[in-house]
Amino acid sequence: MNTGATLIIGAGLLGTSIGLALSKKGHPVFIDDNSASAKALAVDYGAGQSFTGQIEPELVVVCVPPDQTAAVVASALSRFQSAVVTDVASVKSKVLAELSQLGVSKARFVGSHPMAGRERGGAISGRSDLFISRPWVLTPTDETDPRAVSKVTWLAQQLGAALVISNPENHDRAVALVSHVPQVVSSLLAARLIESADEDVALAGGGLRDTTRIAASDPELWLQILSQNSREIVPILKEFDRELDSLIMALEHLSSPGSLANISNVLRAGNLGVEKIPGKHGTKHTQYDRVVVIIEDKPGELGRLFVEVGSLGVNIEELQLEHSPSAQVGLVELYVMPQSVSTLAEGLLARGWRIAE
Amino acid sequence: MNTGATLIIGAGLLGTSIGLALSKKGHPVFIDDNSASAKALAVDYGAGQSFTGQIEPELVVVCVPPDQTAAVVASALSRFQSAVVTDVASVKSKVLAELSQLGVSKARFVGSHPMAGRERGGAISGRSDLFISRPWVLTPTDETDPRAVSKVTWLAQQLGAALVISNPENHDRAVALVSHVPQVVSSLLAARLIESADEDVALAGGGLRDTTRIAASDPELWLQILSQNSREIVPILKEFDRELDSLIMALEHLSSPGSLANISNVLRAGNLGVEKIPGKHGTKHTQYDRVVVIIEDKPGELGRLFVEVGSLGVNIEELQLEHSPSAQVGLVELYVMPQSVSTLAEGLLARGWRIAE
Repeated sequence: MNTGATLIIGAGLLGTSIGLALSKKGHPVFIDDNSASAKALAVDYGAGQSFTGQIEPELVVVCVPPDQTAAVVASALSRFQSAVVTDVASVKSKVLAELSQLGVSKARFVGSHPMAGRERGGAISGRSDLFISRPWVLTPTDETDPRAVSKVTWLAQQLGAALVISNPENHDRAVALVSHVPQVVSSLLAARLIESADEDVALAGGGLRDTTRIAASDPELWLQILSQNSREIVPILKEFDRELDSLIMALEHLSSPGSLANISNVLRAGNLGVEKIPGKHGTKHTQYDRVVVIIEDKPGELGRLFVEVGSLGVNIEELQLEHSPSAQVGLVELYVMPQSVSTLAEGLLARGWRIAE
Repeated sequence: MNTGATLIIGAGLLGTSIGLALSKKGHPVFIDDNSASAKALAVDYGAGQSFTGQIEPELVVVCVPPDQTAAVVASALSRFQSAVVTDVASVKSKVLAELSQLGVSKARFVGSHPMAGRERGGAISGRSDLFISRPWVLTPTDETDPRAVSKVTWLAQQLGAALVISNPENHDRAVALVSHVPQVVSSLLAARLIESADEDVALAGGGLRDTTRIAASDPELWLQILSQNSREIVPILKEFDRELDSLIMALEHLSSPGSLANISNVLRAGNLGVEKIPGKHGTKHTQYDRVVVIIEDKPGELGRLFVEVGSLGVNIEELQLEHSPSAQVGLVELYVMPQSVSTLAEGLLARGWRIAE
């Protein structure tokens, strides 16, 4: 059963990436898109054959914008009477509600959400490795045929994703918290910079850069996501808003009783919140220790460094290359398991590297 | 004149780091702290000699917590009648106002703010390279003696920092925008995670991690910073608050006229804001192109990769190692100048590396 053809409807970033990955594995893939040029581009990229109605797919993956998803899913279920149909939209309950309104039987449908993306969209940004190690959430309901779940499980596994089984409500609540609210907050924060003086923004460091990175995301896509999941997003934003109001009040009346405690509580709560985020391999990032190496900002230096790190037998868990706005040096932050710190630091020092004391 | 002794008061992260950097350059440094153990630790680290009143310093650098800064500066100005005195607090107007209240002549004082830090504090985290390439803002006033400015300019240069001359008001307005408001927003966002289910937070990706990273910062230090700069922070937070209120209203009443335009405007404003942030070497980070390489998550792989990148003669402008929550592979994102992309990608492919299409 798993050798049947897959039809991908929608040749954007996700559709093209899924097509590339399945094609690479040798599975038959067909691709369709309302836009003839987007479809031709994805086919040229190797994401699959152009779909002209020539086959009966076993699996249909709907990769169109969120506001078109339910209609396209309904049409696919009706046109391909034996196919399993899934979608990749970021909000799951809304699609189901719309399908119910359309009076569609949902047995052969299971919603899914591959949690992968890039700040750039379109077929041109597609890549077969987009889903590797990323969560791929399946949201079956009581109505879902087990065959649909197993077919989409197969898809996620073929693409190297980490399968997560949830349900539409839990999924939408979770992504409101970990993705949609951060997007709103990051956009609102970045928007504060528009009217600012260039010399003020010139003082920006890693903190501002990190907190505003996702504010560069596609507004059209996010308008749809936020609209579709507003029910889950609004309560979290209201809680944020209440604490923000209270914090502003405290900052305006610093000498009132409780003001300093209020500010302090917000900062401490932030500490506790960060500790809940899992890091690489399911661990906390706080469990790594850091070694900082200063390198010349020129070709080959990183190579020399990592060869010597490799020869010390130390695995790098995370790394970061720091910006150097004026000097031509880079700071490479290496995060390693605590038991490897002395091996790494002493080994690099012995080989003549500059390490921060 | 620039060979006279420097006295550092306060053996925390910044004081210890300044002492380490000056000592390394061969300059005489003395260090003092109310805490005998902190002082002894910094001396052990090589940050300078223990200060016991044995010398008359030419430069005094006050590195105590923000709420003690003005008092310690006043005392240093009075005790060392020919010394230049500076501080390193994150808020500048407040220190000056407190000095005026104390009736101190401020000619020999110039406030400064080295914009460097770490999420961990204390002498134990000090490092001589902390200031390299970081902005070091000087905030002279009409009262400031040029000798004070030139002495602290010398200090910043010795430490490899990028000197920025501003004034206290402009500095405080700028850091409210690029540092203090992002801290508040990040803390409020991370605080939302405390009550959440573990399986919800398990779906966290790079967006949540980036937006909440600085929420892990020291609450005691930040309570002082936010309190001292509340005048500049509050107006920006109120603007954020107004837009948040309006966005919540729009999300609650999606079908009301103007709601979708309102949400879209926030997202587009976020795009524009991010574009204002300067990247490495004063450029925008959007000007780099990305090549993604898939590597085995084991010692030596990064080394092999960067040796071959080096042999291609390509300079890496930024890089990021992606988390791999379940699979034992890593995604290395290499950002390079657009003209280097094909050399890099084709060269790595030819050498057998797996590149994302």
